[in-house]
Amino acid sequence: MCQLLGMNCNVPTDIVFSFTGFAHRGGRTDTHHDGWGIAFFEGKGVRHFVDHQAAIASPIAELIKRYPIKSTNVIAHIRKATQGHVALENCHPFVREMWGRYWVFAHNGDLKDFAPALHGPFRPVGTTDSELAFCWLMQSLREEFGDGSSGTAPTLPELHAALGRLVPQVAAHGTFNMMLSDGTALFTHCSTKLCYVVRKYPFVTASLSDEDLSVDFSEVTTPDDRVAIIVTEPLTTNETWTHFAPGELMLFVDGLPQ
Amino acid sequence: MCQLLGMNCNVPTDIVFSFTGFAHRGGRTDTHHDGWGIAFFEGKGVRHFVDHQAAIASPIAELIKRYPIKSTNVIAHIRKATQGHVALENCHPFVREMWGRYWVFAHNGDLKDFAPALHGPFRPVGTTDSELAFCWLMQSLREEFGDGSSGTAPTLPELHAALGRLVPQVAAHGTFNMMLSDGTALFTHCSTKLCYVVRKYPFVTASLSDEDLSVDFSEVTTPDDRVAIIVTEPLTTNETWTHFAPGELMLFVDGLPQ
Repeated sequence: MCQLLGMNCNVPTDIVFSFTGFAHRGGRTDTHHDGWGIAFFEGKGVRHFVDHQAAIASPIAELIKRYPIKSTNVIAHIRKATQGHVALENCHPFVREMWGRYWVFAHNGDLKDFAPALHGPFRPVGTTDSELAFCWLMQSLREEFGDGSSGTAPTLPELHAALGRLVPQVAAHGTFNMMLSDGTALFTHCSTKLCYVVRKYPFVTASLSDEDLSVDFSEVTTPDDRVAIIVTEPLTTNETWTHFAPGELMLFVDGLPQ
Repeated sequence: MCQLLGMNCNVPTDIVFSFTGFAHRGGRTDTHHDGWGIAFFEGKGVRHFVDHQAAIASPIAELIKRYPIKSTNVIAHIRKATQGHVALENCHPFVREMWGRYWVFAHNGDLKDFAPALHGPFRPVGTTDSELAFCWLMQSLREEFGDGSSGTAPTLPELHAALGRLVPQVAAHGTFNMMLSDGTALFTHCSTKLCYVVRKYPFVTASLSDEDLSVDFSEVTTPDDRVAIIVTEPLTTNETWTHFAPGELMLFVDGLPQ
């Protein structure tokens, strides 16, 4: 099983603190050493980093821990290969463009007998069940809402409703904890394990469970900031994490679950 | 005008030496300070780095100069904004997926009155003429060779011939120096400025023109290695660079022009 980390905020925020704890699970405090990746939306653009080295050994992970890239939507993933060999093209998150927007997707879990017909423009480059599921979701959304030639894209509630119908069709094939973002919001689905915390005023000091590191968020935030962190397993020891129910699809906008 | 750097080799090679000289043009020895980017193919996967900071000031460029990522196809770009504001989504190279492969594209130049109809699945995310041209090229190739549902993709000679018809249609709108790769080969087109060198046995010492740095390639290569470097302006002072003719489309495979 892999691990997922997502962030959704109302103002661009760096993920250095949470990523530092998370990256330690990639080969040090856990056995997820078959690659990792992270994607940051910055406006409509995406910074996408993938590496087939363990996150703990990766110079790119080291850079991200030191370089505070500010973003309102981030998806990160550390991989324990179940399907698909260890190769760059099998590292999550995956990125595609649809309707003039980038879409970023990562998955934790394992799908059995999942072989949907792909007849649209999205094809997997690698060999994971995850990228196949992403391509099928993109294809299905494009079938439902059109090719974008009208210049309009669906609203978030429309997307939420559509994913509410589509995601269970994938999840029926196994474990489908996943994160999906088009840069305006973060969709998250829990099959087995996912939890979240919303950091907002008054901010407190949080202590990582995977490393001896604390940060006083009140020193680095303003009273208006709101940051949702969604992750496979709680990252901190002194915050109250809310666990998703199995089968729950949750949409985060501006740092809040909808 | 922006600057382009491409590498195509027969064995995975790092681009640290050439990138070091090239990156200096992003804000130090030249005025290209409106962002930069680089994409490395690694098997079918792509490492894609973009930054809207000047290459000379970017911590990510610094990482790439120190971290020898080995690749057979690389495209890099430093940007002097002509169309489209300075933003991450306007940084080259751009990446799309088609036929289960990633395609990477970068452009130097300026297109006037270029407004093709986009009715396929490729839409620009940013506001540059370059990304628009890339989307149109992808759309046109997909129209000619199908959506990949047959499981087959065109051969390199077929792609070369198709681009030989398509690229001049874009270039008719202005300056279109460009590089395009699907990870198996590198297509390059010159409107105004592009040159290349093939480094092969017996390797010599090369000296950068933009920085006081030399490397003796004979110490870091084997007799079978072959590396083509394609760039807007010669990077070294003691190698013989071959200049493209205006309007020339050149395909590089395994480190050799075809």
